Amino acid sequence: MSTSFTMIGGEGPDSYQKHSKCQGGLLEAAKEKINETISTKLDINFTLNLVNIADFGCSTGPNTFKAVQTIIDAVEHKYQKENNYEEIEFQVFFNDSSNNDFNTLFKTLPQARRYYTAGVPGSFFGRVLPKITLHVGVSSYSLHFVSTVPKEIKDHDSHVWNKDIHCTGLSKEVVKAYLDQYKIDMGSYLNARAQELVSGGLLLLLGSCLPNGVQMSETLNGMMLDCIGSALNDMAEKGLIDQEKLDTFKLPIYVAYASELKQTIEDNGVYTIERFDIISNENEEIPIDEDFLTVSFKVTVGGIVASQFGQDAMDKTFEVVKIKTQEILPQLANAKPEMQYLIVLRRI
Amino acid sequence: MSTSFTMIGGEGPDSYQKHSKCQGGLLEAAKEKINETISTKLDINFTLNLVNIADFGCSTGPNTFKAVQTIIDAVEHKYQKENNYEEIEFQVFFNDSSNNDFNTLFKTLPQARRYYTAGVPGSFFGRVLPKITLHVGVSSYSLHFVSTVPKEIKDHDSHVWNKDIHCTGLSKEVVKAYLDQYKIDMGSYLNARAQELVSGGLLLLLGSCLPNGVQMSETLNGMMLDCIGSALNDMAEKGLIDQEKLDTFKLPIYVAYASELKQTIEDNGVYTIERFDIISNENEEIPIDEDFLTVSFKVTVGGIVASQFGQDAMDKTFEVVKIKTQEILPQLANAKPEMQYLIVLRRI
Repeated sequence: MSTSFTMIGGEGPDSYQKHSKCQGGLLEAAKEKINETISTKLDINFTLNLVNIADFGCSTGPNTFKAVQTIIDAVEHKYQKENNYEEIEFQVFFNDSSNNDFNTLFKTLPQARRYYTAGVPGSFFGRVLPKITLHVGVSSYSLHFVSTVPKEIKDHDSHVWNKDIHCTGLSKEVVKAYLDQYKIDMGSYLNARAQELVSGGLLLLLGSCLPNGVQMSETLNGMMLDCIGSALNDMAEKGLIDQEKLDTFKLPIYVAYASELKQTIEDNGVYTIERFDIISNENEEIPIDEDFLTVSFKVTVGGIVASQFGQDAMDKTFEVVKIKTQEILPQLANAKPEMQYLIVLRRI
Repeated sequence: MSTSFTMIGGEGPDSYQKHSKCQGGLLEAAKEKINETISTKLDINFTLNLVNIADFGCSTGPNTFKAVQTIIDAVEHKYQKENNYEEIEFQVFFNDSSNNDFNTLFKTLPQARRYYTAGVPGSFFGRVLPKITLHVGVSSYSLHFVSTVPKEIKDHDSHVWNKDIHCTGLSKEVVKAYLDQYKIDMGSYLNARAQELVSGGLLLLLGSCLPNGVQMSETLNGMMLDCIGSALNDMAEKGLIDQEKLDTFKLPIYVAYASELKQTIEDNGVYTIERFDIISNENEEIPIDEDFLTVSFKVTVGGIVASQFGQDAMDKTFEVVKIKTQEILPQLANAKPEMQYLIVLRRI
């Protein structure tokens, strides 16, 4: 039942590995805050001087390497300051779905790392690590995925059927269906991490959410997803992809409002919220350029398009996307911004 | 400097995944002994009811899955019997070089496993896990690899130059060069595991060694490696591969005598030898058939041949190997057997 959503692997020009700069910008902007929070809030009893760190939804790098290094630097800094820094060892668990390209991840690991590396295949909506072994977890740009697309919105005969390929925000019923699934999934995610984290351990969440009153289709990401949907419609009209396949093709993505995200965490009840910051991301200046945007969305959304329609159809679709993107450059330039968040939770 | 030696990945007809039955036979034969040893010798203080298991040199499966399941079954059996079996969790670390096909390993994980999975990229001649975290380690058919081919035997101008592609046993100087490297590597391996293992933790070693008085070239494996060497010579004579490249091409393999292996372990001094058994492997009946043998050696040795001479040359070489194998079937049928060992070490 679950929908796999994996970034395009490898190290080629159309790989996530080569096109994930924007996702890395938020981390850069949040670095100081992460440092400060780890310094003041991480308070754990180290068994064996071992610190276990995990990135849930790591993809292929290089952002995951930066994220874990930021955490390691902060932990080392904290314990050097407190004068009980002695031979601490770090073990980093890189988690993503078993479809993720772990081979590329492993081959591109930083040479100079000073941590033990482990790749952990499996959905982060369930448990992927043993109980009470994790000290600091992080998820960066991975919590807008839902584990599965709500059944009814894929069903052409249902009144809740979504004519678009994503949750544009225009249909209340569609939004409700996605939000219900999102709440279930975030709950599962938070419960799984709660079991894995030691008491006092931290969970860092980074990503995008919607400001109040803004609909997905008014944002740059929303407009680009609409553009991909429109390209797929053209492909179906020309008979290049199957219309029925397109009718059931919905992205497992829900970009929540900040208030929804906060409520879900509070409902969970086993974390204290140490930070809930909207970061002004100085690197968020995404180039409004059809080449850049097309490739960026190809590496993130292309994989799931290819798995539904085939590799050739995917390539052709993104040729159309490029043309359509060029046509809407003025609208894209005036898109309403999403909000980028850094949330730090502490396991009670 | 180090030589990478990786089994052929994927799940295709020419993959290690599909051709590793022989390596699995020893495990089957050793199962009862492993059970018994874990039952009587494993005596560890479980932190958090977590048992960490690692396979060093796991390749792509399925043998590694059988090996870790054998260990898990034995540990569960022991603790059920002792009535303090309660919610024990298992975490399994699958280690191999970062060239290993972890993607295939992860996609073919047993569905019904009840352990947390982690892939650990890196050479097992060095540390790959944090200190004092490992309860049971295993290496199956991976300790006949040396980390690097001794320099002098690759040098055509050296008097120790090895005219063959492996350590046939015919030249004393070549044997000494390989053995020296083997001792260094086994020492590094044992030291690394000694740091990773908890006190009382077990290390299981399975593989092949030579009986006293038997030379590598008298065994089936040795004959087949000679056959590959002969095929490469033919390729060079026809100008299909570069003679100079062939002169420096030596396999990083040393199959030790049992006495050498035992001595190396005793010299290390931080393990007690709980078992040093020569197993009569009932499944060791390798079909003396040119198709079977050619594919078996292609999946294990083909990768390193391809990395030296290219994929095409490798494929052509193994076409020649098949013909040559057919010619020596009578000799292969009368090859002297290697000895298959199960060694169990206990960290002092």
